[in-house]
Amino acid sequence: MKQYQHPTIDQITLTGILHALSDPVRLNFVRSLDQYATEQRCGAIATPVAKSTMSHHLRVLREAGIIRTRTEGTQCLTSLRLDELETKFPGVVKSVLSAVDQAESVPQ
Amino acid sequence: MKQYQHPTIDQITLTGILHALSDPVRLNFVRSLDQYATEQRCGAIATPVAKSTMSHHLRVLREAGIIRTRTEGTQCLTSLRLDELETKFPGVVKSVLSAVDQAESVPQ
Repeated sequence: MKQYQHPTIDQITLTGILHALSDPVRLNFVRSLDQYATEQRCGAIATPVAKSTMSHHLRVLREAGIIRTRTEGTQCLTSLRLDELETKFPGVVKSVLSAVDQAESVPQ
Repeated sequence: MKQYQHPTIDQITLTGILHALSDPVRLNFVRSLDQYATEQRCGAIATPVAKSTMSHHLRVLREAGIIRTRTEGTQCLTSLRLDELETKFPGVVKSVLSAVDQAESVPQ
């Protein structure tokens, strides 16, 4: 079964987070994940790009420390590491997500 | 005299801001500019990169709508567009700058 690698909280950098969120597809994905507020089955969130492209985007988000992916049985599940990010960089991801909400959605 | 082009507030995008701030050199420059709190003479803020490289970074920041550059006589002056950014994306740039302050400085 596939094991996903995640940075520890100490390894997460501010510039890494900003870079990961600077892409419209990734930003909209994170916003959707935040709106569900619970762990989501991989592939459950609709995205406007090919599966292989989305795999790349998810890896960027995972390596930046924004999402966590795990497997359970045959399922792949993804969640937002919002509590950890809030602890390390208070307000950063939350204010970005609020700004997306205000703009309704980011043009892709 | 050189005229600098700047996006209007409507043209400024969230992803553009996040991208511009996702580079350590640019992020530290913006943080320094914020700490001075007033318009600064171009070149007054020390940076760890060559002048030509910094010109590129300043263009990225200007085109993203984060800084404003103008000339006065023979001087070139740069300021942060923080009030405008706060109006459009409340808390985003401020929380990022606070996060940099907490971390003392971003490794470059």
